[in-house]
Amino acid sequence: MSILLPRVRGALSRTTPSRFSLSPAFPRASISTIPTNVSGLLDLKPSEAVENVKIDGYVRSVRAQKLHHFVAIGDGSSLKPLQAVVPADQAEGLTIGAAVRLDGSWVPSQGRHQSHELQVSRAAVLGPSDAKFIQTHTPILTASDCEGAGEVFHILTENERRASAADPARPFFRRQVYTTVSSQLHLEALAQALGNVWTLSPTFRAEQSDTPRHLSEFYMLEAELSFTDSQSAVMDLLENMLKRVVSDLADSKVAHELLNPFVDRSPDLAPAEQVAQRWSGLNQDKWPRITYTEAVRLLEAADMPFTHKPSWGKDLHTEHEKYIAIKVGKGYSPVFVTDYPRDIKPFYMKAGETDHGISSSRGTAECFDLLVPEFCEIAGGSMREHRLENLVESMRARGLNPTSSEDPTKNLQQPDNNLGWYLDLRRWGCPPHGGFGLGFDRLMCYLTGVQTIHDTAAFPRWYGRCDC
Amino acid sequence: MSILLPRVRGALSRTTPSRFSLSPAFPRASISTIPTNVSGLLDLKPSEAVENVKIDGYVRSVRAQKLHHFVAIGDGSSLKPLQAVVPADQAEGLTIGAAVRLDGSWVPSQGRHQSHELQVSRAAVLGPSDAKFIQTHTPILTASDCEGAGEVFHILTENERRASAADPARPFFRRQVYTTVSSQLHLEALAQALGNVWTLSPTFRAEQSDTPRHLSEFYMLEAELSFTDSQSAVMDLLENMLKRVVSDLADSKVAHELLNPFVDRSPDLAPAEQVAQRWSGLNQDKWPRITYTEAVRLLEAADMPFTHKPSWGKDLHTEHEKYIAIKVGKGYSPVFVTDYPRDIKPFYMKAGETDHGISSSRGTAECFDLLVPEFCEIAGGSMREHRLENLVESMRARGLNPTSSEDPTKNLQQPDNNLGWYLDLRRWGCPPHGGFGLGFDRLMCYLTGVQTIHDTAAFPRWYGRCDC
Repeated sequence: MSILLPRVRGALSRTTPSRFSLSPAFPRASISTIPTNVSGLLDLKPSEAVENVKIDGYVRSVRAQKLHHFVAIGDGSSLKPLQAVVPADQAEGLTIGAAVRLDGSWVPSQGRHQSHELQVSRAAVLGPSDAKFIQTHTPILTASDCEGAGEVFHILTENERRASAADPARPFFRRQVYTTVSSQLHLEALAQALGNVWTLSPTFRAEQSDTPRHLSEFYMLEAELSFTDSQSAVMDLLENMLKRVVSDLADSKVAHELLNPFVDRSPDLAPAEQVAQRWSGLNQDKWPRITYTEAVRLLEAADMPFTHKPSWGKDLHTEHEKYIAIKVGKGYSPVFVTDYPRDIKPFYMKAGETDHGISSSRGTAECFDLLVPEFCEIAGGSMREHRLENLVESMRARGLNPTSSEDPTKNLQQPDNNLGWYLDLRRWGCPPHGGFGLGFDRLMCYLTGVQTIHDTAAFPRWYGRCDC
Repeated sequence: MSILLPRVRGALSRTTPSRFSLSPAFPRASISTIPTNVSGLLDLKPSEAVENVKIDGYVRSVRAQKLHHFVAIGDGSSLKPLQAVVPADQAEGLTIGAAVRLDGSWVPSQGRHQSHELQVSRAAVLGPSDAKFIQTHTPILTASDCEGAGEVFHILTENERRASAADPARPFFRRQVYTTVSSQLHLEALAQALGNVWTLSPTFRAEQSDTPRHLSEFYMLEAELSFTDSQSAVMDLLENMLKRVVSDLADSKVAHELLNPFVDRSPDLAPAEQVAQRWSGLNQDKWPRITYTEAVRLLEAADMPFTHKPSWGKDLHTEHEKYIAIKVGKGYSPVFVTDYPRDIKPFYMKAGETDHGISSSRGTAECFDLLVPEFCEIAGGSMREHRLENLVESMRARGLNPTSSEDPTKNLQQPDNNLGWYLDLRRWGCPPHGGFGLGFDRLMCYLTGVQTIHDTAAFPRWYGRCDC
């Protein structure tokens, strides 16, 4: 008989007597000191059950069955997890990462992978864990220009810089390399390995924008959700995260001190009332969500002397975004604008399935921008095209080479965008997924009232300035 | 009479009666609930003393006087600190950053800066804090090539890259900009603002080295100590830090599992015995420290067929470092090699004051490399030239332009190294200081037995490889 049989049986029938009954089926051992960490307990190999064992640790994995959940517990004291067998009615909240306290008996195991296991009589969740995102570290240098907007900084060695077009130098990395404009593509790869992931990483844009809202080197907070086809879920995550930040902030004493109108405020800071209004705007119950198509209709109907005439198919300018923020958000609440035309958005965004009343030849992408009053765009996100054929088609439509070439000197007729690896992510089990990127320095400015983003960095870099 | 006078008097004479006697000089108030955080306590403004106050928090600053220490306490609940008056005999361990629990009376203050203060009867240090280093975030883009070895990656926009020498494009940043090879120069600036500082930051080297020890993008752990003129102190910090890491590691169950000779080890990992020897080598009581001059003497006396003949004034090659690691460290202990010739080291290193038996024209720098068996150099550091004249002289000797030019298009006869800001750090109160940089990925390899540094990064970049 397979040693796994009793477990299988227990899972198949509620009435089958299980070896995991709470009245111990094992003789009882008596020892003087019972270890209280995973490492110590794993070293203890009694032939009889040891009762009154207590252990604190973190849930590493869970295998849920009908009567029992098999929970791997780690506490850093050992690379090996401890197997805890938890009655199903005690298993609520035992999710990966949760901090737990377990009471039970340490008994010889019939399982193949461990000599002993903890038969749990009581499981208490001390620190719950849900929707756990894993922090990752994404690279600065990349061969893939994710936005394709040409606003990248190229990386060249001294030799390459000095070489002429007639006599080019062999590239250090054998291909053109940039400082990253976004960690998104790499986050997508990491999400396939780790599930939901995030990073807070320096990113770089060669935009010739000398404004109080632009840095050439800035921090972007990016998150990628795996196994979701709901753009609403991505927007909910962003909205809830920002609400949590601002409600914690608003509830704090620090807030009252920051916003005290009787305290002299540096002229480098926005007035306290303005900052208070931003916070309460972010705290609005439900942020309006409108489609790009609805936004364009509002702009077309507006009695406003726009410098750029609004028109479906063109990107929204700052003047348009400001109008939308006032019209839809009452100059108060943040506003999501969704489903922009595919043609003005990057290749990786998932094609929309509804046509929003527009003829289907004018397709949209499942994407969104988050606009806040005064600052306009502070974050953006999308569902990613996870279907290989659709992604190839989207790349072709933009003149991007969808064939992977290991030797970059070949296939020179079409520029190599080094996106073969990104296509490969779609080949062997790519779940639907999506995510967002948030300008972290802009958020700091917005929440604190710092007037220019240059003041958020110890050594700010922007158009024309990188002096040290 | 100045309201500060009693405090001054108390500090000047032990026998002067102080207002900070532990028997309260104030009438006693009685309130039902005493706040337990800083914010709540600051809001409480009784006219009489409130006794039995307990508060947990962190030391923000300390002003030590003869009989009492004035300690500012914060706990995140308020931007304003709470002033605690601690009897000198209770003040041990009250250093900046320490977590403390204070018992005392909340009394009206005669000080100018607060209405009330805590007269402490008992101060307990719950979490001591010494030599606290502040983490900082240093920039990736920089106009200053700190090492001057030419192994930088240049940053160019698309326009600049396409421009020809005959018709150059205006640089995006108005000057040549690189990805940083080290955060040191910026850390030095931050150290003048914040005291001791550290960073763990991506750094970049355009070395054409396709070896298992080289990455083009790697993490460097750098620390800068302020107000020290002792190179030994910098080496002690590095040695103690690494010893602490390895002793924590060696004491853990994880270590025994990692090094268990009965467990199959991946061929990608060094043998367990080798890793164990590295750890115990790092745990050696006192790591040998020899000067470069002594090292060259050993190399000259060695009966070894070196490819590169050792000679004073030339840099040590890997073959030399390996010999020193075996000869001096017995192939076991790490070895510090100090006081290299100035001419082969960067401009910012402090000139040595002793000549180590070498004629003084062959000057040395106050610097060190840390060699470990097999891997050789894993860290390096130096005292920095903090004296303006000496730094200018050192730059001139290396052909670097020591004049600051705000307009980089001027002064083109000498290349502008954009080091004016770095010289400026020496002009208005620059303390003696020094620090080190440690190759973080190399340390990971060394401690775990990972054979190639490429395996330490999710997306490794090295000579010829940056494929995604």
